[in-house]
Amino acid sequence: MLVKALPRRLLLGPGPSNVHPRVLAALAQPLVGHMDPVFLAILDDVQAALRRLFGTRNPLTLPLSATGSAGMEACLVNLVEAGDRVLVGVAGVFGERMCEVAKRAGAEVHRVDTQPGCALDPDAMRDAIQRVRPKVVSFVHAETSTGVLQPVDEIVRAAREVEAFVVLDCVTSLGGVPVELDAWGIDAAYSGTQKCLSCPPGLSPASFSERAVACARERKTPVQSWFLDINLLSRYVGNERVYHHTAPISAIYGLAEGLRLIEAEGMEVRVQRHRVAAAALIEGMAELGFEPLVDAAVRLPSLTTLRLPAAVTRADEAQLRARLLEKYKIEVGGGLGPLAGQIWRIGLMGENARITNVEALLMALRQLLA
Amino acid sequence: MLVKALPRRLLLGPGPSNVHPRVLAALAQPLVGHMDPVFLAILDDVQAALRRLFGTRNPLTLPLSATGSAGMEACLVNLVEAGDRVLVGVAGVFGERMCEVAKRAGAEVHRVDTQPGCALDPDAMRDAIQRVRPKVVSFVHAETSTGVLQPVDEIVRAAREVEAFVVLDCVTSLGGVPVELDAWGIDAAYSGTQKCLSCPPGLSPASFSERAVACARERKTPVQSWFLDINLLSRYVGNERVYHHTAPISAIYGLAEGLRLIEAEGMEVRVQRHRVAAAALIEGMAELGFEPLVDAAVRLPSLTTLRLPAAVTRADEAQLRARLLEKYKIEVGGGLGPLAGQIWRIGLMGENARITNVEALLMALRQLLA
Repeated sequence: MLVKALPRRLLLGPGPSNVHPRVLAALAQPLVGHMDPVFLAILDDVQAALRRLFGTRNPLTLPLSATGSAGMEACLVNLVEAGDRVLVGVAGVFGERMCEVAKRAGAEVHRVDTQPGCALDPDAMRDAIQRVRPKVVSFVHAETSTGVLQPVDEIVRAAREVEAFVVLDCVTSLGGVPVELDAWGIDAAYSGTQKCLSCPPGLSPASFSERAVACARERKTPVQSWFLDINLLSRYVGNERVYHHTAPISAIYGLAEGLRLIEAEGMEVRVQRHRVAAAALIEGMAELGFEPLVDAAVRLPSLTTLRLPAAVTRADEAQLRARLLEKYKIEVGGGLGPLAGQIWRIGLMGENARITNVEALLMALRQLLA
Repeated sequence: MLVKALPRRLLLGPGPSNVHPRVLAALAQPLVGHMDPVFLAILDDVQAALRRLFGTRNPLTLPLSATGSAGMEACLVNLVEAGDRVLVGVAGVFGERMCEVAKRAGAEVHRVDTQPGCALDPDAMRDAIQRVRPKVVSFVHAETSTGVLQPVDEIVRAAREVEAFVVLDCVTSLGGVPVELDAWGIDAAYSGTQKCLSCPPGLSPASFSERAVACARERKTPVQSWFLDINLLSRYVGNERVYHHTAPISAIYGLAEGLRLIEAEGMEVRVQRHRVAAAALIEGMAELGFEPLVDAAVRLPSLTTLRLPAAVTRADEAQLRARLLEKYKIEVGGGLGPLAGQIWRIGLMGENARITNVEALLMALRQLLA
């Protein structure tokens, strides 16, 4: 398969989403070195833009050199030492993943579960926080497996009462819905570039509060991952400029351009664009018999989850997605984990959150389901 | 700093090296999804090409979704459980890093050191292996901090006698000098894309023997890194195609093209090209008073380390490199670790291993040192 012979896809799954041509052009710019003053200036710009987007003044705000799952691992392994109690709010596959990652970091993991497609219950979280008195409370802002946008305030307040650190997964929220780490009181957050930032997958924008940085600095044991140790990373992305690992230059060029596009549009306009596109999608899909899984109050605009019409069986749905991809070059996502075969996940993320894309999908589905 | 306004650099440092225009063009191709059959076919091709380049039939040969340092971590954390003995041959900064990574994986680390610029002594390694009887023996094939190409055979033989697993760092060797994992008996190896493969930094090609895969499968404790756990990764890159994390699509497009360029040239021609360029560099630099740090017998063609002329002080050398970068747009590397201020590291890697680049550097230096 030659790269040049690739089909043109409309990526309306749970990510990656389509990348703006200007970002693609940035990826193709010739390299400079990772210690070159020119590159360090770009990295500074990226960090500053990420701070604005995350709504934070955290000095340690950076693009981690790996995908969102590594961002999750970075947040947890830096804060957790063996035997520490971590409370995870589990509202889907990515909450589950947090439990697994925390366990592998040696944590004593406690969890609060919810039904698929529902938000975490803040009272249940508060009760568990009071009972467990965890060092870290970790949950997902925008659960990519269910399409729930989790309200943050009450859980963070409860965590603060016991002085717990709060880790927040912003993979499918950053750049699509408002994120305000400082106002919310988040200590460590991570995202991915391939969702609402409309960049290729490969980087995990992340931010650590001064309190989180101090916690990592004062650990009794070293961070188990050398690659993700913020004590070392901060010496490269900060003023010291000490070499740690070779930064992924081209990907950071792309992210720089993607962040510039976001700022040129403005987050207010962008958030509204995501809302409008999601509303049009839900309306149009309802006519085809697809019903939203998630209550309107906690529905994530960037990723809509829809129950399949009764006429579409589990076997049908995979075939329908395959035909959509082959014949119409449109990708949508199936269910993940316990929701496999029961729902579709349709992303309208970043550049893709546009009515024209909704219309293209609806037209294709009308023909396929006719 | 706008990405479009970047200067054009000739990257003759220890990596990244310049990227072929065809690889840059591949990076800029529109995305398909990470579960798209079209992408999975590209991934299959990349894995097959990496097997040929690594000289292995290992099914688990893959581009890890992070830089070479994450590849080091992946090899060690999958093989090591808490309390396991690991013997590291330390011939420079990257051997040091192996000790640190293994320690953080809970290993009891033993080490055999050598003088900066020297290869590991196979007898010292054998003695230590016999004495320690480690589970894992780990060392660097091409030490990027010293420019030594480490002979592999005797150390691997000694490791095999005690049934130790062998981990090999091929970051600055793969694609520049012959690598033959199966013939040598290596269990886990990793590289980086930004050196002799002439792709951007961001991926770590890696390979695990069936024995290494079995070791990871039969562990008593889970691999401490969820992101780098080969038990999970093998389910995505193998036949099952189970989602683990979102593959860095664009970077893999670039790697696919880079590997195609290597195969079009042929490794024999490519290896010879690296040798010829390095020889010309050493000859030309000698006229300027720079002398090779490393004995000819173990000198790495892709990265040449040179002692500075007596007239160039420690302060001078940093300024000289800065002027080379500013005025001539040529990057060369300074010394790392104990060799900082004492040597230069000049990479002629992948696409850059050409006489014309040597001439450009020599001309610039003649003017600067005149």
